[in-house]
Amino acid sequence: MSFKINDNDQRNLHQLAELVRRLNQTGHNPATSGNYSHRSDENKDFAFVSESGIDKGLFSENNFIPLNIHTKETHDFYTGRKSSDETDVHLAILQATTANCVLHSHMLEALWFADLFKGKSFATVSSIELLKGFKGVTTHDVEIQIPIFPNTQDIALLGENMKPVLNLDPHCFGVLLSGHGIYVWGNTVAEAKRHLEVFEYLFKYYLNKKV
Amino acid sequence: MSFKINDNDQRNLHQLAELVRRLNQTGHNPATSGNYSHRSDENKDFAFVSESGIDKGLFSENNFIPLNIHTKETHDFYTGRKSSDETDVHLAILQATTANCVLHSHMLEALWFADLFKGKSFATVSSIELLKGFKGVTTHDVEIQIPIFPNTQDIALLGENMKPVLNLDPHCFGVLLSGHGIYVWGNTVAEAKRHLEVFEYLFKYYLNKKV
Amino acid sequence: MSFKINDNDQRNLHQLAELVRRLNQTGHNPATSGNYSHRSDENKDFAFVSESGIDKGLFSENNFIPLNIHTKETHDFYTGRKSSDETDVHLAILQATTANCVLHSHMLEALWFADLFKGKSFATVSSIELLKGFKGVTTHDVEIQIPIFPNTQDIALLGENMKPVLNLDPHCFGVLLSGHGIYVWGNTVAEAKRHLEVFEYLFKYYLNKKV
Amino acid sequence: MSFKINDNDQRNLHQLAELVRRLNQTGHNPATSGNYSHRSDENKDFAFVSESGIDKGLFSENNFIPLNIHTKETHDFYTGRKSSDETDVHLAILQATTANCVLHSHMLEALWFADLFKGKSFATVSSIELLKGFKGVTTHDVEIQIPIFPNTQDIALLGENMKPVLNLDPHCFGVLLSGHGIYVWGNTVAEAKRHLEVFEYLFKYYLNKKV
Repeated sequence: MSFKINDNDQRNLHQLAELVRRLNQTGHNPATSGNYSHRSDENKDFAFVSESGIDKGLFSENNFIPLNIHTKETHDFYTGRKSSDETDVHLAILQATTANCVLHSHMLEALWFADLFKGKSFATVSSIELLKGFKGVTTHDVEIQIPIFPNTQDIALLGENMKPVLNLDPHCFGVLLSGHGIYVWGNTVAEAKRHLEVFEYLFKYYLNKKV
Repeated sequence: MSFKINDNDQRNLHQLAELVRRLNQTGHNPATSGNYSHRSDENKDFAFVSESGIDKGLFSENNFIPLNIHTKETHDFYTGRKSSDETDVHLAILQATTANCVLHSHMLEALWFADLFKGKSFATVSSIELLKGFKGVTTHDVEIQIPIFPNTQDIALLGENMKPVLNLDPHCFGVLLSGHGIYVWGNTVAEAKRHLEVFEYLFKYYLNKKV
Repeated sequence: MSFKINDNDQRNLHQLAELVRRLNQTGHNPATSGNYSHRSDENKDFAFVSESGIDKGLFSENNFIPLNIHTKETHDFYTGRKSSDETDVHLAILQATTANCVLHSHMLEALWFADLFKGKSFATVSSIELLKGFKGVTTHDVEIQIPIFPNTQDIALLGENMKPVLNLDPHCFGVLLSGHGIYVWGNTVAEAKRHLEVFEYLFKYYLNKKV
Repeated sequence: MSFKINDNDQRNLHQLAELVRRLNQTGHNPATSGNYSHRSDENKDFAFVSESGIDKGLFSENNFIPLNIHTKETHDFYTGRKSSDETDVHLAILQATTANCVLHSHMLEALWFADLFKGKSFATVSSIELLKGFKGVTTHDVEIQIPIFPNTQDIALLGENMKPVLNLDPHCFGVLLSGHGIYVWGNTVAEAKRHLEVFEYLFKYYLNKKV
């Protein structure tokens, strides 16, 4: 297997690694948690997935491992290194959607927010101006459905189960995992970051509103 | 149409862009939200309004677009670039008041605080020493009325509706938008920043007081 | 009147100005609020008091004005500049105690905590290990009395009224002002900072404890 | 007594001092509180314990004092300097476990969390994905027992009392002290930091969950 990285790939991974380090300062990936991926621009069958067990305050573009999205095959160069335990969820999202960038955050707001919908398959958010931060949303007067999955250690099965719901709501770019966190995606690093900021803001709004 | 920028304009835009980036670190403009303007010193019929869709952590003085406050006309040089979706509210404030600088924050405290006054046209704050941070206020022993508007996507109409209330209370330098945020103004960048800090502090005080 | 500054004075003012800027990042002095003083090492009848109206994020050692602690007389050099509106409280503390450094914080925790003792003249704190951060305290098993004053704009009278209570509890290095903030002192900048950190921690503990 | 420091020791102390300064920015060691130790790589009978009374925002690798873990003997070079008041707890943990690095945090979350289990000898945490940040934990589906001790100024006795419980739960790497804080350990600075981040996250989760 041969694998090449082009200039766009380098720029994307540099930008994503910088985002990962910044997210570390605001509680998104404590204790080496959190994982991240970006589809390759050079070869659309491949994606770069973050390496397992790295302190995200020290994460760099060298901590990505290129994988075939369908076979998980990687280049010999990476033998002995391991992509995130949750690689299968990243690959499921990259297979089922047109997104190029996937972020997984452990932010506590995602856990508390999912708890509010215990026993339900979807959480809803609506009526807040910042919803317009989601791609394609042009008014606060919408309701968006966010799928919720129970936590599991069977990541391959989780990925398969997620696929059918990922495109149900054209304005939803995230999936909640109870007691675990949220997966968020976008076409670029900047768009995925913007979507993550919208989710964080909405969750905080609902968790702390007074009336 | 010709348009010139003088040294004061350059200094004001530099200072305002720096403030925008700093506000990004404390939750005022997530997900490319928030917008900002400053009246031109060289030509009082013009104002610089922030460009649409910029990540506010990356905002610079080059992200302002000069507009005629009355006609919204701009220089050919800016063809193809778009000022904030909420330009009409900025222009309404610049038309109806003597303020030179307008800040729009999406801080969650503004949303939660406005929620406390659901169905009312004004929120009130009083009795806190930091009220003296508002221009002209010399004692904590005052009550200030902050207008509240329901959120809307009809920004032109919103701007028109705001004009009559902007000068009602001589000590109020802000307008709340339910589920959306707050507009704050002052004669200079520093004064607008000071007024924004007073609002943020007051909202936090009321939202979290114990008795 | 002549006035000299020695090396210790320069070092103390440099250190205090640095602390003022850092406190600005954590909510102690928003909207140009907060004021600070240090007794002169060269001339014990004098103190350096912070200038009025400065954005505390931009505060430097040049923003202190030397004043005679008893007469408020200053050097001609400072004509036209104004020390803090609350200078009289600083001078009262410097007259009545042996402290050399006085910090005035508007942290919201001080307001919410004082609210818990509405109508009382003293608040109490006890049983927390960090109480040992107060000078002379060697066990968590103590109770400390913090005086509370109602807010007022008559600062000269407030200063006079404070003097009799400043030394009542040998382990208390602060006075609360309802709806306003807290005054904290220590023999050095480092000690005053340490005492302020203890107060902030204790207030947060009491305000958010669950049982 | 002679004492040598090797390259690993230097690297560990440098890394630990950097962590101490960073923990200062997030409320773990206000008002000179908090203390830290690392076992010597050169001589396993020795450990480096943080010096008493240092502002942790200014802490450096020069603020560690090497001590014999069993006799507390130190080198003449350190005569007149004093290791932390809580040295005996550090030595107890280094004697009773195989950990090399011990962190003591005063984070308020540890106090509030311990309060939830008033009168009990153990607190429990379970079912959260981030539990996998503890060494050896491979699923969220576990329950971990954290010992709780009442606060005391008899640190020697506290250390002795702690020893029997330090290895009870193979997945627990911390001990709570009511009204005081938490001791956390790991085989390396990085592992102890990771464990501390897990505790902080879990405490916040439980303290603020909505249902």
